[in-house]
Amino acid sequence: MKHSINAEYKSGMAFDIDVMGHNVRVDASPEHGGTGSGPSPKPLMLAALAGCTGMDVVSMLDKMNIKFDEFSVKVDGETAEEHPKKYLRMNAAYRFKGKNIPHDKVEYAVKLSIEKYCGVMAVYKESVEMSHSIEITE
Amino acid sequence: MKHSINAEYKSGMAFDIDVMGHNVRVDASPEHGGTGSGPSPKPLMLAALAGCTGMDVVSMLDKMNIKFDEFSVKVDGETAEEHPKKYLRMNAAYRFKGKNIPHDKVEYAVKLSIEKYCGVMAVYKESVEMSHSIEITE
Repeated sequence: MKHSINAEYKSGMAFDIDVMGHNVRVDASPEHGGTGSGPSPKPLMLAALAGCTGMDVVSMLDKMNIKFDEFSVKVDGETAEEHPKKYLRMNAAYRFKGKNIPHDKVEYAVKLSIEKYCGVMAVYKESVEMSHSIEITE
Repeated sequence: MKHSINAEYKSGMAFDIDVMGHNVRVDASPEHGGTGSGPSPKPLMLAALAGCTGMDVVSMLDKMNIKFDEFSVKVDGETAEEHPKKYLRMNAAYRFKGKNIPHDKVEYAVKLSIEKYCGVMAVYKESVEMSHSIEITE
């Protein structure tokens, strides 16, 4: 499948990016010469990962008929200090809230996303040290 | 440097992602079980690349005192047909509009971003076949 996005330069460090008909504004923070009118681009890599694996997990838990009250994916990334300041490590923390959520099935869904389904993960894990955790609370 | 983002599940396939204080909504398209209330996550990888390398280039051209009227970065990505449906190839098309834009200096700025500065590129090029083009029109 082919995907296309187009980033139009606006002013300063700001770009408006058309992503499938939705506008995503990116900008540098004031300390990096921008005005902070949008997120900086690199953390969008973390957002792509959270969304991709999050949707995989939601979809699998739905098929397994597992209910939850809340679900979030927090992704932390640590960049190199020298150029290119790429992510060296990322951690994805899967957090669930709800009653009687079976840990083994959640773990299975997360594992399937990480190892088989998530196309974002498949690219990152070739060059970034990836880790994850699962937390379930009532 | 450490970056953190947090994706909160909303409903269907939709997540609201806090990226440095800015909300980025992602959703699956209707044909993939979502409502299309935001872009799907994978193309955010392309947006991250466009923003990252675009800012590098703007910043270098500014230092070289090179003016332009318009600038955009279009990124195309082609995914695998089988799981994990990761990007196999990406192309970044740098497009400039303006009078007397020196091609060699623009090429130098793009090359520096691709080879040295862009941290997003540095991750992708380990596992994705990357290409680019430069177009300058008056």
